[in-house]
Amino acid sequence: MSLMIAGTMAFDAIETPFGKTDKIIGGSATYAAWSASHFTQPIKQISIIGGDFPQGELDALSARGVQFEGVEVLKDEKSFFWSGKYHMDMNTRDTLITDLNVLEKFDPKVPESYQDCEFLMLGNLMPSLQRQIIEQLKNRPKLIIMDTMNFWMDIAMDELMKTIKMVDLIMVNDGEARQLSGEYSLVKAAQKIMEMGPKYVIIKKGEHGALLFHEKQVFFAPALPLEDVFDPTGAGDTFAGGFIGHLAQTKDISFENMKTAIIVGSAMASFVVEKFGTERLTEITNEDVMNRLNQFVDLVNFDIDIVA
Amino acid sequence: MSLMIAGTMAFDAIETPFGKTDKIIGGSATYAAWSASHFTQPIKQISIIGGDFPQGELDALSARGVQFEGVEVLKDEKSFFWSGKYHMDMNTRDTLITDLNVLEKFDPKVPESYQDCEFLMLGNLMPSLQRQIIEQLKNRPKLIIMDTMNFWMDIAMDELMKTIKMVDLIMVNDGEARQLSGEYSLVKAAQKIMEMGPKYVIIKKGEHGALLFHEKQVFFAPALPLEDVFDPTGAGDTFAGGFIGHLAQTKDISFENMKTAIIVGSAMASFVVEKFGTERLTEITNEDVMNRLNQFVDLVNFDIDIVA
Repeated sequence: MSLMIAGTMAFDAIETPFGKTDKIIGGSATYAAWSASHFTQPIKQISIIGGDFPQGELDALSARGVQFEGVEVLKDEKSFFWSGKYHMDMNTRDTLITDLNVLEKFDPKVPESYQDCEFLMLGNLMPSLQRQIIEQLKNRPKLIIMDTMNFWMDIAMDELMKTIKMVDLIMVNDGEARQLSGEYSLVKAAQKIMEMGPKYVIIKKGEHGALLFHEKQVFFAPALPLEDVFDPTGAGDTFAGGFIGHLAQTKDISFENMKTAIIVGSAMASFVVEKFGTERLTEITNEDVMNRLNQFVDLVNFDIDIVA
Repeated sequence: MSLMIAGTMAFDAIETPFGKTDKIIGGSATYAAWSASHFTQPIKQISIIGGDFPQGELDALSARGVQFEGVEVLKDEKSFFWSGKYHMDMNTRDTLITDLNVLEKFDPKVPESYQDCEFLMLGNLMPSLQRQIIEQLKNRPKLIIMDTMNFWMDIAMDELMKTIKMVDLIMVNDGEARQLSGEYSLVKAAQKIMEMGPKYVIIKKGEHGALLFHEKQVFFAPALPLEDVFDPTGAGDTFAGGFIGHLAQTKDISFENMKTAIIVGSAMASFVVEKFGTERLTEITNEDVMNRLNQFVDLVNFDIDIVA
């Protein structure tokens, strides 16, 4: 009766127009777990780290109900490291360094104690590894969500297509949706991606919000207009964590409840970009989250008793 | 007790990835009037046309309650002509031809019969001409809205600033908001623009929707996700016409009612892009408009009784 999250737990070094960090904690599974932990616990993590990953971070996540039996530790090796630089528009970034380190040896194993998971979030990883996780499950979860990226479309499209076929919901950004489908229109792109297997498609548009597609239905969640986006790193993973966290909490995977979940994800993403790394996710209270959700209600709520 | 719309009535020739037109009817005041006429009549037009502007188009607009006493006709001259080409993303376009023609002699006069107007929409025009219209009014309208463009920021910023100071609401696109304010963040840009005079700022983001700012409040209206945007020409003017048309119909300029108005404007814009030029605006019924408004409700409406 819990949530499983697979992905990277890693270090990032980030440069934005507003500042620069040394190595800080990052990784898709780290962001997703911090975000989801505001809504559901326990969270069963699948990842791989080196001996350099700080015990303090693991302890802080443990205190939020995150479990690590599925996280392999290679004591004498280094954790995955990514370094990147954002420009003013924050929608694109240059990768400066990618050191795979332990990630090259990642052979994910689902522990027996994880087999009761009803919700599975596959963060961005090599598609064959995402599939390897699904194939180890004795019972199919209620909902399997995958994230991916353009890199896998460039170098491992066949593998990616096999994995996509197995999931219920795929999250991609607008550029990736276009690349994956060969369609420029996001409406057409989503239709084509649903033909590949997933019943639900979420297209993330960064500061322009996110679209949820299912059959002929579409829902749009805006991003909160912020004075500044300080650091967009992890916004997509945080969004994913809030989205599946809300679904796991409510155990309701109806389209109506996914609308609420996408607003929850957007609210969590609006926090994470306010500071570098995961810092804001570790600070915010449930009250902060509720206040932010109410801001979303004010942002999009309107009366419509109009006579045309 | 009516709406006055100033702007161009003109010809366009348009090329998009989906097709190409010869000279068709265009102009900011034409689009705005067609759009507003679905909500309020009469509409008192201020513009200038040549002898080449088709009587059939004037008759069609008359049938929609549009009046032309304020439209100067230079029989022996040509109407304003613009030709442009859109690329795949539809958010940018190349201007191929701009023939000012009659526009070079435009010296707008507000007829006595227009002096009762409570709502004034100043479509994109030379800022000094927009101001000249305001200065001829004996009573200040309940609401003055102006549209403008980057071109005037490049060549007539002083004039533009004088006009901006006199209006209640300014509509600009995201790039123009940044240029006008010198701020990258749209939230900060809107705050700075409000310091220039207008109490309300609308920032149009094309396919990414529109933001309405007033004091510390913000409202977001999405664009309807369409399978294809066939021709974006006039989308901003159509949006403006729907927005002010709803306000003029309801005679309510509260922030709450402006939220509804921005949805109405977005709905009208979602129609106009489905075909070349004004064609869709001339076809749609009140029922079509109501159905489209309900699609917007479905698109953004969500339940939020969440426990974080």
